[in-house]
Amino acid sequence: MPGPDSGEWTYARAGVDRGEVATALAALLRGVRFRPPPASGRRLELPGHYAGLVRVGRETIAITTDTVGTKGLLAEELGRWEEVGEDAVAINVNDLAAVGARPIGLVDVISVARTDPEVFAQIGRGLDRGLRAAGCHLLGGETAVVPELLRGTDLGGTAIGFFPRGRRPVTGSAVRPGDLLIGLPSSGLHANGLTLARRLVRETRTPLDRPRPGASRPLGEELLTATRCYVRATEALAGSSEVTGYAHLSGGGVRNLVRLHPRVEFVLDRWPTPPGLFPFLRELGAIAPREMFQTFNQGIGFVVVARPRRRSELFRRLARAGYPDAVEIGHVARGRGVSLPAEGLRFEGYA
Amino acid sequence: MPGPDSGEWTYARAGVDRGEVATALAALLRGVRFRPPPASGRRLELPGHYAGLVRVGRETIAITTDTVGTKGLLAEELGRWEEVGEDAVAINVNDLAAVGARPIGLVDVISVARTDPEVFAQIGRGLDRGLRAAGCHLLGGETAVVPELLRGTDLGGTAIGFFPRGRRPVTGSAVRPGDLLIGLPSSGLHANGLTLARRLVRETRTPLDRPRPGASRPLGEELLTATRCYVRATEALAGSSEVTGYAHLSGGGVRNLVRLHPRVEFVLDRWPTPPGLFPFLRELGAIAPREMFQTFNQGIGFVVVARPRRRSELFRRLARAGYPDAVEIGHVARGRGVSLPAEGLRFEGYA
Repeated sequence: MPGPDSGEWTYARAGVDRGEVATALAALLRGVRFRPPPASGRRLELPGHYAGLVRVGRETIAITTDTVGTKGLLAEELGRWEEVGEDAVAINVNDLAAVGARPIGLVDVISVARTDPEVFAQIGRGLDRGLRAAGCHLLGGETAVVPELLRGTDLGGTAIGFFPRGRRPVTGSAVRPGDLLIGLPSSGLHANGLTLARRLVRETRTPLDRPRPGASRPLGEELLTATRCYVRATEALAGSSEVTGYAHLSGGGVRNLVRLHPRVEFVLDRWPTPPGLFPFLRELGAIAPREMFQTFNQGIGFVVVARPRRRSELFRRLARAGYPDAVEIGHVARGRGVSLPAEGLRFEGYA
Repeated sequence: MPGPDSGEWTYARAGVDRGEVATALAALLRGVRFRPPPASGRRLELPGHYAGLVRVGRETIAITTDTVGTKGLLAEELGRWEEVGEDAVAINVNDLAAVGARPIGLVDVISVARTDPEVFAQIGRGLDRGLRAAGCHLLGGETAVVPELLRGTDLGGTAIGFFPRGRRPVTGSAVRPGDLLIGLPSSGLHANGLTLARRLVRETRTPLDRPRPGASRPLGEELLTATRCYVRATEALAGSSEVTGYAHLSGGGVRNLVRLHPRVEFVLDRWPTPPGLFPFLRELGAIAPREMFQTFNQGIGFVVVARPRRRSELFRRLARAGYPDAVEIGHVARGRGVSLPAEGLRFEGYA
């Protein structure tokens, strides 16, 4: 790993060390030993997914929780809150989509140093856009005013989803060599890698109010673009016997594919050239390709894994649902992990 | 309202102005206009409750979200995290209990400036205690490392619950004059009013490592005591046709009763003398009685509203479930709001 004097930037150098987070989380989980009786619902083990699943009476409920993290600091800098409001929905419902669940709704959590009605109004309009894209309810929320605890605004949420009658969770367990990998393009960074991106912009004194070379919008706006919602894609594919897995490429980038199935290789041999924002950041920070692919989404925000038969039908359904830009990005092979042959990259495990 | 030079302390003077929070929240909610189609589940309106309810297929799901707020700063000061870990569960499942839902499980959210495995291990043990008390699952979680955003550790969670077959939500709509008010004692401050309590302790240089007069434990420990869980109470009373409402007295204190039913009066004419910690804080800050009852729980953390017939059966059930200290605190009368005749207090509305 490059030292702090090297010109090369990593997510860890920007302050977020995935190994340390994993160690802390393991310590927490060792403390949680209680297993409730079946009367409280039966938890379904779903290794490798961000969504938790539980059988409740006659339904299966999926639940996900996530925050927009340091993207809120960018929102603060730019005085624009609609995008992160939309993100608070999208980052959560996309994790529901990744198990094939239909979102029911979201509760939001806003922790602030002080309440500003204009900021809250913008967040509300953003939440509305996110709920509209996902077709789900705002079910509640919490506003915590904690001036001593926070420098800015922390925005997050929890979403729940269900499986309409006859639909089963998509777990990835049926993924096998020969399956097709279809990528759904992202709208930008989404809500991942912002700690690193913001750090690079600051250290290189790159102006946020002007477009980067080749872009039409100011860089700040481009970085802030709301997360694309993939719910309409998984709803359009629901019930298709070809689909074997979904992956939401959020924190961890293409590594998230490894979580889907531990005993196959995800060969990304047709990854499209990442949109200009990604090479721009890569050059700004002399970021290694490996780090780019495990920190940013590199242009693809969601992956559909499917049997290769009837591929044109899958693409047709995706196009009709609002994803005419879906693209084949690779295939599943015998092996382990994720590989990007063109970059000479290989990721063996998740953490 | 007393000015900053007055000796008298209020929650607003400590930095949390409920009116401002309500204004900001109203601005947010004005932005959320989308109403999803019934295919996404049917939201049930439940005015006055913190829990959101939604009909999903053949089940009704309740969802609540809350954070421990500035109690985390006290945990940090004392280097003790088990209590707030337990709180993260209890504050949420108590809101589920208040609609009569049985908790299924919780997702936790920990936002930190840096990860400390020992802190996470303690939080894990605390979550375990909370889950055990509520009889529910840990369904997932999120750890956000956001050093630029946070000074300390922000801990929260979202809980979901359901209604076992034949059970209906307890909404308070059937509350009527003549109903009995049964109070379930709190274990201390729970997770409310800590911003004010900490401020008073700091300004008066009251030591946290020594007991207050009349107490056996150091003041810091007493303030940090984990929130009592009321799930076993509502589970024990489930199906009882006498019960007409529940209220979790969290932020807002006795005002929370007003939310339960807008067209009756909750007469608290038998409120027990608050345990020593409450008068101690009152004297420390020259806090007015009105402020005490709308900021702290004043010794009662949960209220059961029930028809007065068969009262001894209700108390027997509560005692068997672990609440032998349940106590009659008043009754419902014709009128509006909440009154505390002994204090000459009257609260008309919630905010």
